[in-house]
Amino acid sequence: MSDLPKAIEICEKGPREGLQIEPGPIPTQSKIDLIDALSETGVRQIQVASFVDVRRVPGWADAEAVVGGFRPRAGVRYSPLWLNEKGLERALQFKDRLAFRDAILMSASEPFMIRNQNSDTAKNAQRQHNQVALLKANGILAESALIQAAFGCNFAGDISIAQLLETIRQAFDIAKEHDVVLKRVSLNDTMAWATPETVKQAVGAVRERWPGLRINLHFHNTRGLGIANAYAGLELGVDSFDSSVAGLGGCPFAGHKGAAGNVCTEDLVFLCDELGIETGIDLEKLVEAARLAEIIVGHPLPGSVMRGGSLRRLRQQVQ
Amino acid sequence: MSDLPKAIEICEKGPREGLQIEPGPIPTQSKIDLIDALSETGVRQIQVASFVDVRRVPGWADAEAVVGGFRPRAGVRYSPLWLNEKGLERALQFKDRLAFRDAILMSASEPFMIRNQNSDTAKNAQRQHNQVALLKANGILAESALIQAAFGCNFAGDISIAQLLETIRQAFDIAKEHDVVLKRVSLNDTMAWATPETVKQAVGAVRERWPGLRINLHFHNTRGLGIANAYAGLELGVDSFDSSVAGLGGCPFAGHKGAAGNVCTEDLVFLCDELGIETGIDLEKLVEAARLAEIIVGHPLPGSVMRGGSLRRLRQQVQ
Repeated sequence: MSDLPKAIEICEKGPREGLQIEPGPIPTQSKIDLIDALSETGVRQIQVASFVDVRRVPGWADAEAVVGGFRPRAGVRYSPLWLNEKGLERALQFKDRLAFRDAILMSASEPFMIRNQNSDTAKNAQRQHNQVALLKANGILAESALIQAAFGCNFAGDISIAQLLETIRQAFDIAKEHDVVLKRVSLNDTMAWATPETVKQAVGAVRERWPGLRINLHFHNTRGLGIANAYAGLELGVDSFDSSVAGLGGCPFAGHKGAAGNVCTEDLVFLCDELGIETGIDLEKLVEAARLAEIIVGHPLPGSVMRGGSLRRLRQQVQ
Repeated sequence: MSDLPKAIEICEKGPREGLQIEPGPIPTQSKIDLIDALSETGVRQIQVASFVDVRRVPGWADAEAVVGGFRPRAGVRYSPLWLNEKGLERALQFKDRLAFRDAILMSASEPFMIRNQNSDTAKNAQRQHNQVALLKANGILAESALIQAAFGCNFAGDISIAQLLETIRQAFDIAKEHDVVLKRVSLNDTMAWATPETVKQAVGAVRERWPGLRINLHFHNTRGLGIANAYAGLELGVDSFDSSVAGLGGCPFAGHKGAAGNVCTEDLVFLCDELGIETGIDLEKLVEAARLAEIIVGHPLPGSVMRGGSLRRLRQQVQ
């Protein structure tokens, strides 16, 4: 139990990951309102927009308007998602407002990358080289990599530890060619294959190979294990997690087949509060943001604490 | 990791706990259909009905018809819930069809017991004595106790380990006066106060005090931690869990304020399948029963694997 971290960093993914999957177009102002509400909760990183092909993701045709429109708060890192040089160039127009984390985008599954980014391993490596160079030309070091399908893939099956380590090694190599040293890697369970045990195995193996590397964990709740997987990470002292307010992102309750959203941010913050792990986030304010998210999408979202309430108020009542 | 159990027993609570909370009356035949469907999954214990005050729980006015109507399958234990002698007498009419587990009903919180069972500690002790005697007169040993509010209570706050142990000790004493030795205790997180860490603390303390006692864990998902709490129990080798098909029981998505259902059975079985823990349950058949439950209640239920699917089929596809 003593390996629990004292504090963790939460990277809020709801605005970016959650709103693109909704069937109705979400008004630009609603996206901005949600980002601004999240900025007030104490969360220190928010992914705010996708700079991707508008034909493939029409819900993010307004990425520029959203990024230009939110109210930046000191101490909060606002980050974009991009999948290729064109998207990165669009995002770099806002480099005074954005932080370029998860800069090197890899996939432990080549079949997934071919489907998602239209790139095989070689093409992706070249693309990442170009992007690291482009970032460097803009004064930004690509010190952080994101590994998609880190635990398993619907098109490739289970991902071995060897395959995961090899993918991270390739990310280190890409950075190194530009004299950049990776400091952080995000293990993304893109298709919800992780279990608490495979989380522990992966974290253990990555740490053994690169002891100083900071690990971020990103889980989806498609098979109900998101919070258990996060707890498994906490047990090993992992101190950085992606999550999504109200569980935004993929909505099984609206009849979207398959993928569910990320681990719900309120539920994760509640867990941390109860375990004595500092998140810097005010849970009651976060629950308000979760309710705003539900109003914006217009249907119930899967978060639990936004309905069940925290225990703090109950404790106060019985005192 | 090595403390994970090789096999666990799952006690399905969906038919009893899930159907009483639904706003519309559930037809008797639908309850029977769900029980019969669950009987085909490999689950070895199903709680099938509540013999409680019909004025307080009108949804179980048909307890006799349900218990008389399902098709018993060899190897499956069917259990009733009762809260007082009158309910127990009603259930005992069906003693050839029912197994009387969780026979001694205690609460670690007196304020909760007063609200839920209209009994203070002294009155409840007398009631439990009477029931243990009544069971014994029917040839049934009350070897199993259920502790409500084992981790916390909305009306009493956090439950200390000392209070939990004292409550279990009282259950042992009640059994002992009738020459019965408790073999099993169920720690029920009735109001969803447990966290993975308090689960570990409670399991550790109960084991230290009564090393041979089998522990069952019962979690609600009101604050999203159900499956993480179950995983914490598995990590300590706990081998008995309550759960509810499709997450039946309290439905946050139908606007019922507050309490959510138990840990979802399919999600728990999926976790166990992935961890190599035997449950005896066929996950695909269980998912069919979950879908039947959703049809019966007529609204979405919170289970995840019933939507996201297991990984077995995906693995077969990529081979």
